[in-house]
Amino acid sequence: MTTNRSKKPEGEPVGIALLGFGTVGAEVFRLVQENADAFAHRIGGPVEIRGVAVHNKNKLRPGVPAELLTDDAKALVLRDDIDLVVEVIGGIDFPRELVLAALNAGKSVVTANKALVAAHADELAEAADHADVDLYFEAAVAAAIPVVGMLRRSLAGDKIQRISGIVNGTTNFILDAMESTGASYEDALAEATRLGYAEADPTADVEGHDAASKAAILASLGFYTRLTFDDVYCEGISKITADDITAANQAGYSIKLLAICERLVDEETGAESVNARVHPTLVPKDHPLASVSQSYNAIFVEAEAAGSLMFYGNGAGGNPTASAVLGDVIGAARNIVHGGRAPGENTYANLPIAEFGEVETRYHVDMEVDDRTGVLSVISGVFARHGVSLRTVRQEDGEETARLIVVTHAAKEAVLEDIVAALGELDEVKAVHSVIRLGV
Amino acid sequence: MTTNRSKKPEGEPVGIALLGFGTVGAEVFRLVQENADAFAHRIGGPVEIRGVAVHNKNKLRPGVPAELLTDDAKALVLRDDIDLVVEVIGGIDFPRELVLAALNAGKSVVTANKALVAAHADELAEAADHADVDLYFEAAVAAAIPVVGMLRRSLAGDKIQRISGIVNGTTNFILDAMESTGASYEDALAEATRLGYAEADPTADVEGHDAASKAAILASLGFYTRLTFDDVYCEGISKITADDITAANQAGYSIKLLAICERLVDEETGAESVNARVHPTLVPKDHPLASVSQSYNAIFVEAEAAGSLMFYGNGAGGNPTASAVLGDVIGAARNIVHGGRAPGENTYANLPIAEFGEVETRYHVDMEVDDRTGVLSVISGVFARHGVSLRTVRQEDGEETARLIVVTHAAKEAVLEDIVAALGELDEVKAVHSVIRLGV
Repeated sequence: MTTNRSKKPEGEPVGIALLGFGTVGAEVFRLVQENADAFAHRIGGPVEIRGVAVHNKNKLRPGVPAELLTDDAKALVLRDDIDLVVEVIGGIDFPRELVLAALNAGKSVVTANKALVAAHADELAEAADHADVDLYFEAAVAAAIPVVGMLRRSLAGDKIQRISGIVNGTTNFILDAMESTGASYEDALAEATRLGYAEADPTADVEGHDAASKAAILASLGFYTRLTFDDVYCEGISKITADDITAANQAGYSIKLLAICERLVDEETGAESVNARVHPTLVPKDHPLASVSQSYNAIFVEAEAAGSLMFYGNGAGGNPTASAVLGDVIGAARNIVHGGRAPGENTYANLPIAEFGEVETRYHVDMEVDDRTGVLSVISGVFARHGVSLRTVRQEDGEETARLIVVTHAAKEAVLEDIVAALGELDEVKAVHSVIRLGV
Repeated sequence: MTTNRSKKPEGEPVGIALLGFGTVGAEVFRLVQENADAFAHRIGGPVEIRGVAVHNKNKLRPGVPAELLTDDAKALVLRDDIDLVVEVIGGIDFPRELVLAALNAGKSVVTANKALVAAHADELAEAADHADVDLYFEAAVAAAIPVVGMLRRSLAGDKIQRISGIVNGTTNFILDAMESTGASYEDALAEATRLGYAEADPTADVEGHDAASKAAILASLGFYTRLTFDDVYCEGISKITADDITAANQAGYSIKLLAICERLVDEETGAESVNARVHPTLVPKDHPLASVSQSYNAIFVEAEAAGSLMFYGNGAGGNPTASAVLGDVIGAARNIVHGGRAPGENTYANLPIAEFGEVETRYHVDMEVDDRTGVLSVISGVFARHGVSLRTVRQEDGEETARLIVVTHAAKEAVLEDIVAALGELDEVKAVHSVIRLGV
């Protein structure tokens, strides 16, 4: 495939359509106006925002000339004087239609929309390839942390083994608050809502859906294999209790909601597969991810030659997201001015996606058991019969029952599920309070 | 400027000349051979190493066909079947000659050579621009940590305020060892040498020259202003004592050798200037840079919109350096196949470089003083007369003298120099043991 696009005549501005004028859109608009001169130098030619699509064009938008505003986004995208479309609307169906229309019309697109990219990357990438234009989405994962560029470019000569990321600020804020103050999940969520870290309906964040979209994007980039949102196993933090946090702390761990993208290798055949998942994870306190506090994001990457790398920063917010969008705008505009094309989606490896049951993890199992001789033997027998050995066992005596916390060696998810079912059937086990995976 | 280079005919390999076959060169060679298929997919066409320039072509190089070896690097670079030159020789003069020859002959260049880039970036960039080819050097700073790509691309739409980096693994290893074991500088250096973290002649590392090269590169990229090695104030770690480390620890700091690149703004005129410097720096223990241990590197970037970002990983070694070189090879090869050009050196902002004396810092001054009433008043008077106020004062009584440690508020380097001179003239001050800057 070679680039057939004609270059922009020298000095003629790159025409930009800005779709959406929320927190991010307004920042993008402001920064393009303020830094016009710097951007022109960095691109090799000027850019110009030629239209701003909004829902209500009669609403006052300070600093935006009225003639730029339109409520017909589709018509704006298709205008001849638009070379580059910046989508910061959010949602899926409407932006999908606009982004496809733009790409099909031969315009490059910058989007910050993780849900759109995670659900429809294949269709979007195909349209971009067909029109030989760029589709950029750095801001879709962890805002200003440049993990997309890093996977697409900097690590393009390496082989990614694993990506473990704190990619949702809301849940990190809640878990961090629970750990540092001893608060319950409900109280920490209420505090996050009060401070604006959680939305009125926090479901997408706390149930891990937002992180799962990002996991799909990271895994697709890292493994050159298409994974969509539906391929990602997803478990949120709403069942994590103050007790879980305390038990984890006592054992030397913090609980973090991790997006984990992993390359699996079959021990016998050497065949590779990949998996992406999101779940609460016990992270050793001396691991760099454990010290990521408040609403910060961090991505930990393990690559064959590079070793371990970590990227840390603001994973959300108008300014950091605008920074990532503008980095993409400059890249896309450079290519419009100079010719050339950014590395696009590339799923050549097309590795099979491993079932979640095939994933091997270690587990922290917290249960309430009868406080009498022989119980430990019965319970450890259940693990042993399933071929799973125990790494640590901790017992705390209660009044009539005891609390038993075991940490296993690596076992497959499917096996652990069987073990938990078997434990549930034992008279000696009153309750399995929690099963939390260990990671990194 | 537009791209005039013709694209590669489809399917024809990009011919690579590898200059140098040390640790990094051997890894680059091995990985290109092993991952040929993956690389072809990621580039959009195959690459082929067509020659390897070495000092002694009769020395056995396992896995390298003899017909690829040559001791005439210059002739190899100029061969018609070479499109891309990878320079991993090291040194300055000889690689400079080769890289310039390659660029002038219209070949793109990937180099890992920080000394070369820091000394001659202007000349190299001009040659690349003139020939309309790419000059990549991700591996020149912090190996696999993709800070060059991040500054050139991801943060291209932002405004960098400050970059603070641990960019030399040897000195970080030594300082970390001194802090964790209480060892003297000499003993920690000996241990670093024994373990292979320090070279037989450690001067370039311990005196900060290596870090200064990287500071020049980071500042040039971040501020779009040419800074060379000679513009960087440089102070190494060889005068740091176990006492300094202990005093820092007691005050809640770790001592790190930081490369600091800073944008300065004149309070009255608003005029901007930039400065780059390398010196031992007190970093608060709760700052992410303080926990960077052993020979790891980390770069902390403060940008206007993105906020604070940190990048962490292996800053040296054959494999991590090869990973960075290969990311560049894939980028450069993509452009040769598809057309287009990477963002090159861009010094449009051309900001004045502030004298080191104009830089404002806080200081930790450790002195031995007479142990009698009124001494503190005399000493604090010296600071006050120079307009510098003290933030903390700590006094430890000794036998006949006392140890007095003060931490100042921000003051200009030039003023602090005057203060130290004035303190030295006081009868009450027996010695100024150390002056260490506070940072981040």
